[in-house]
Amino acid sequence: MLTVKTSTEAEKIIFDTFGGITVPTEEVSLLSSVGRVLAEDILANEDVPGFNRSTVDGFAVKASDTFGCSDSIPAILDFKGEVLMGESPTFAIDKDECAYVPTGGELPAGADAMVMLEFSEDYGDGTRAMLKPSAPGQHVTFRGDDVKVGQTVLKSGSRLSARHVAALASLGYSKVKVYKKLVVSVISTGDELIDVTENPVGAQIRDINSYELCGALLELGCEINRVGIVIDELPLLEKAVTDALEKSDMLIVSGGSSVGVKDATFKVYDKLGNVLFHGIAIKPGKPTILANIDGKPCFGLPGHPLAAFYVFNLFVKPLVIKMSGDLGTSKSLKKTLPVALSIPSNHGREECMGVRFVIKDGKEMVEPVYAKSGLVSNLSMIDGFIRIGRDCEGVSQGDEVEVELF
Amino acid sequence: MLTVKTSTEAEKIIFDTFGGITVPTEEVSLLSSVGRVLAEDILANEDVPGFNRSTVDGFAVKASDTFGCSDSIPAILDFKGEVLMGESPTFAIDKDECAYVPTGGELPAGADAMVMLEFSEDYGDGTRAMLKPSAPGQHVTFRGDDVKVGQTVLKSGSRLSARHVAALASLGYSKVKVYKKLVVSVISTGDELIDVTENPVGAQIRDINSYELCGALLELGCEINRVGIVIDELPLLEKAVTDALEKSDMLIVSGGSSVGVKDATFKVYDKLGNVLFHGIAIKPGKPTILANIDGKPCFGLPGHPLAAFYVFNLFVKPLVIKMSGDLGTSKSLKKTLPVALSIPSNHGREECMGVRFVIKDGKEMVEPVYAKSGLVSNLSMIDGFIRIGRDCEGVSQGDEVEVELF
Repeated sequence: MLTVKTSTEAEKIIFDTFGGITVPTEEVSLLSSVGRVLAEDILANEDVPGFNRSTVDGFAVKASDTFGCSDSIPAILDFKGEVLMGESPTFAIDKDECAYVPTGGELPAGADAMVMLEFSEDYGDGTRAMLKPSAPGQHVTFRGDDVKVGQTVLKSGSRLSARHVAALASLGYSKVKVYKKLVVSVISTGDELIDVTENPVGAQIRDINSYELCGALLELGCEINRVGIVIDELPLLEKAVTDALEKSDMLIVSGGSSVGVKDATFKVYDKLGNVLFHGIAIKPGKPTILANIDGKPCFGLPGHPLAAFYVFNLFVKPLVIKMSGDLGTSKSLKKTLPVALSIPSNHGREECMGVRFVIKDGKEMVEPVYAKSGLVSNLSMIDGFIRIGRDCEGVSQGDEVEVELF
Repeated sequence: MLTVKTSTEAEKIIFDTFGGITVPTEEVSLLSSVGRVLAEDILANEDVPGFNRSTVDGFAVKASDTFGCSDSIPAILDFKGEVLMGESPTFAIDKDECAYVPTGGELPAGADAMVMLEFSEDYGDGTRAMLKPSAPGQHVTFRGDDVKVGQTVLKSGSRLSARHVAALASLGYSKVKVYKKLVVSVISTGDELIDVTENPVGAQIRDINSYELCGALLELGCEINRVGIVIDELPLLEKAVTDALEKSDMLIVSGGSSVGVKDATFKVYDKLGNVLFHGIAIKPGKPTILANIDGKPCFGLPGHPLAAFYVFNLFVKPLVIKMSGDLGTSKSLKKTLPVALSIPSNHGREECMGVRFVIKDGKEMVEPVYAKSGLVSNLSMIDGFIRIGRDCEGVSQGDEVEVELF
């Protein structure tokens, strides 16, 4: 018997069943990897920096040769030569010797510190005077100081951004292994639905959900297969579901509001696979279905575009992220902010409430946008949503809430 | 005479000179608009909903006919018929009449309220008994309740996300006018640089900056023209700059660390156009150049990849966003969090400090990642950065800081 699940139970079923599935991998060029999910641990294949590098213009020395020197008692060192930028020195430094090295240049073997140019003097006789002592390691970045060969720099499962690409470039990765894009099919079903390219006649309603859901999937880096509208007759829907599953890793059917739709999706899923739950105790979004067809997750989402959006964000999105290989270690998409107005809630089931950012008394806060004010108004105004627990009477003005950003 | 500018002065020069430029527009299909910047105000071209819609299954009535009714004294109304989902009623409701309307269905003319099915009884003689009174407007969403025709729903300059696409679909927009992608050319210059596909010999250094900057520009929705490495000889750099500017709206040259580079970029910019500043009092990133060549912004960024990244985020990114038409009304990319460790700073110039998120005592905080720990370590670990003012001695443990996310 399929009973309505709490959101926690639903999350557990989703992840227990499908959380272990990850899309295959492919190799892409460095710049194509921006926004993709890394599918290998990145190890430093060399020390960084690869040589002992000076951080100043000046003289490479053995620090011990400069101990105790000063303006009045300089350390007189033999000048062995100049190291050019981008070139490795062809000589080494011995006791009482020095060499000129520019910022970023390589220290000759034997040197362990730099004396800045301004604390030296050229005696014109092949020697240089050091007027200030230098400690071992001073003004030097030693080979491997940043990263040592073999060290893990980036972990598999990271979503790659510009700074990761920079780290990869610095380690010499011109290609990287990433997860393929998760392919998701999206079907809208309902007799009263028409495509956005058509004009509604009578009480026909435009298919909003397939655009909304495909938009959200694109934002998550998925490849989409927008099937569009399917009339809610069982054979048609069954064929559409079967065809879509052949091409994709996940399926989302969202119902129109006409009477037969909820049943149609359920019946098709039940016939083709195994329905795992039918109903989540959450407002909005109760009539949510999850089925397992040939090992692929198939969701049935509410017909109402706002309800579908919340259910997508709460239950589908985390699975999309997980199946895409993304371990979620990247940028946090939650903000903790006080509420500008009290929000009552006594529905006995968990509730999602759309909110928008406002500045009040010079402080960033959120205020509720009630679904009553309508669909379009909501969609165009909300910045994110908060969750109010089923046992919670609401939120009082000034309370801090965790906002999940859209 | 070009003097070093404070960050505020630099921002003012950047926006005063180029803030008024916006890329041209183009029309794209609805799903292609995800992530693009809207280039027109979106007005509701119809009322939403387009008809008086029932929010329950039940009977459309004149509310006044039900006033005072109850289980014991029901209101007996003539049944005029049933409205089908997706169809407009062909009849109206008069005094003492009712009609069945499903959830989402259209109320017949004359009706101003709904009575839920469970509070009615079928007397089997062509009448229905209403057992509960309904107030005018009860269980009804009136035409235009959500949005009225002519109302502005989305403003030009909004970065379109899934929820905006949903709002556009609900209003029947199958195409929208968006700003074209800003085209940015990126050049790395320096004799010691090699591409990431090559292996460094001696003290050669890989070109990190062009990948890092192109990655960041891709994240901002730009089209990139990665010129790659140009040797820092004036005629070569001049030709590369001229060619790049022909193909793009903005140019970024970042220098290697070799001696002649800073001068080369400056000299080429100075020859081809008008250098607006040369140096910003900020750490890291002092050697930053801005020039105006044929009305196009040309930046010269530091050669060090971390310094280039900060300068890009602080000074280039805001202009990229503005020139892309994005008015920045979308998702906030800043978070206010306490610091887990004190951060000293007494440099007399503004400082940027990389930070990463940590959980301490169960609370989200940020801790500094010192540049000293190296380039790759920094790039792979930082989640964002904070700015420490030039007159500020540092930040104490527990102080709240504003974190700009990467």
